[in-house]
Formats: sequence, structure tokens, C-alpha cells
Amino acid sequence: MDLLKERILRDGRVKDEQIIKVDGFLNHQIDICLMDEIAKEFRRLFADEKITKVITIEASGIAIACFTALQFQVPLVFAKKSESKNIDGEVYRTTVTSFTKGRDYTVILEQRYLSPGDRILIIDDILATGKAQKGLLDIARQAGAEVAGIGVVIEKGFQGGGDALRKAGYNIQSLAIIDSMKDGTVKFRN
Amino acid sequence: MDLLKERILRDGRVKDEQIIKVDGFLNHQIDICLMDEIAKEFRRLFADEKITKVITIEASGIAIACFTALQFQVPLVFAKKSESKNIDGEVYRTTVTSFTKGRDYTVILEQRYLSPGDRILIIDDILATGKAQKGLLDIARQAGAEVAGIGVVIEKGFQGGGDALRKAGYNIQSLAIIDSMKDGTVKFRN
Repeated sequence: MDLLKERILRDGRVKDEQIIKVDGFLNHQIDICLMDEIAKEFRRLFADEKITKVITIEASGIAIACFTALQFQVPLVFAKKSESKNIDGEVYRTTVTSFTKGRDYTVILEQRYLSPGDRILIIDDILATGKAQKGLLDIARQAGAEVAGIGVVIEKGFQGGGDALRKAGYNIQSLAIIDSMKDGTVKFRN
Repeated sequence: MDLLKERILRDGRVKDEQIIKVDGFLNHQIDICLMDEIAKEFRRLFADEKITKVITIEASGIAIACFTALQFQVPLVFAKKSESKNIDGEVYRTTVTSFTKGRDYTVILEQRYLSPGDRILIIDDILATGKAQKGLLDIARQAGAEVAGIGVVIEKGFQGGGDALRKAGYNIQSLAIIDSMKDGTVKFRN
């Protein structure tokens, strides 16, 4: 997606060969117009998939998942990272390792919000090692829900998570795949 | 807002006199159409306020803040609850006590995303004791940003946070104010 790639080149800040900051438009401050265009692109890419729900993990995936759910006119459900007093139903539960936060955490989703009749689209802002996506795939498996696809805004191709999911047969669509950030230069996969 | 109140009565589940679960449409599973209507109502209520940014705290406020920012066509910035490897700039920092999670946490917002020229609209899904809102007000004060208003989907009026903010002079608009939940019956303020 050219608009997104241009924005990454313009406003992304490469910190080292592993980390690029895109929080000026994607996951801290959110550019509403760009999100809208990204969501339309997901709509186009998964148009024939009969999506019934968009699924993501809190927190940074919620914004783009909202816009995507709006395009598909289906509910959004986000898995939660910690238990609060307000979780009381039966939950699906899985463990996710965060690359950026450097630790494991438990992710939960109330069972009433995901069921075998659902065809879900998993949406996230960043895909690196794929741990967050695998957590959501595990929850989908527990629920018996069908995974229609995985939509990612930026895939860090050099961390391998996306290619592993492709190899496993998932319909994964990343709007920009970064293959390297050597010497501060972002190189996209064609 | 009648549509919202009807939905609370229909799908809200009162757990005790303090807690109502609205996660079927507001903060776990998100009803896109309802969010869209709520955001339009915030647009109407704060139409003359020359909003430059919508601000919220992760995670449950992000969805409604997204839709609201879309209505105002301004960026959304969400304060983050914990520090990750990906926070590297100068940050505003404040402490918030969560009623539902029963603990304190630090909230940060990168300084580059909020400045004295901003007129912000603080948006959240729930207002109870007002701690989250006070945290964002503290961040706005540090940034020198002007607070144009506070928009809340559901205010738990009996917890007093909203009235304290009104008394302090803020333009706070709650779309449904619950004044009591005795014997499992939700009573709204007129």
C-alpha cells in the first residue's frame, strides 16, 4: 500500500535494526484519515471472506481494528491483557510473549463473544515474531471459530513471524513488509 | 441519549450495586453502529469547541475515542499504561488508580503529541470516581494544552467523579448517568 509506505518513510523513526517507531500515526497518536484508508484496503483484500467479527488484542491494535470493523459493518472484539473485576464469564485464555515489552502476559476473551459460527478477521498494527497473532489463533481454536484471514498494517519481515504464518496456510495480508532497516534505511519487500 | 440508555437496560448486566457489565457493546465486544451514533452525539455536543485532538487512556477508551476523532476529523492520542521498548521520547507521566483493577498504574504520553496549541476533548467509556479523567487532566496541564471538554459514554453518578469535575468547572457531557443500581435496577439521572 503506497500511501502507507510513503508515510513510514516520512514519519517512521528507525531506532536500530530491530525497532522502528511509527507512533506518530499508527499506535500512540492515530492518524484518522490514514486509518480509514488502511481499513478500506483490508475491506478490499478480504471482501469475499464473509467476515462476522474483527478480533485484535489490546491496546495498540484496537484503533485500526475499529476502522476495519466499521468497513465490514461487523462487531469488533478485543482480547484483554489482564483480569479485572469486570471479567466474570467463562473466558478463553492464552499466553503471549511481547517483544516490545519483553515479558509474557495472559490474554483473555469472554467465551460469549466468540463462537463456532464466527468467521474472524484478525487485525493488528504490527507483526514481528507473530506471538500476538498466534495467541489470537489459539483463542479462535478454543472457540471453534474459523479464521478467514489476518490483516497487518506493518510486518517486520526480518523477524519471520509473517512467513511462518503464511507457511502454515493462513491468508495473511500485510500492507507494508519491512525486510531490513540496516543503517537506518527501511527496505520494503516487493 | 435514549439509544444508549435503551441498550444499557437491554444488554447491561448489573453485578452488584457498584458494577454493571456493558462489555457486550462498549468495552470488550464493540458495537460499531452504536459507537458511530455515540460519536455523532459527541460531535453535536462539542461542535463549537474547536477541538484539535481527542485524548483517551488505553485500553477500553480507545474504540469510542477513535469514532469520535473520526467525527471531528482530528488525530487521536491515547495515553499508555506501561513503558515499552518503543517509548523513547520525553513523556508526560501521571499516576492513575483503577477502580476495576484495584491498583495504581503509571500513564505516559509522549510530549511531542500534545502541546500548548492543542484544544483537547477527553473521551472515555466509563466515568466512576474520575481517576482516569484526572490523570488525563494532569497530563494536559503538564503539556499546557487547553481542555475543551470531557465526553463520557456512561457515568456512574453515584461514585461522584463526574459531579466533582462539574464542580471544578469542566464541560463534561455524559451520555447516560446511572444514579443507582439497587436491587439490580438501573436508574438514570434525568
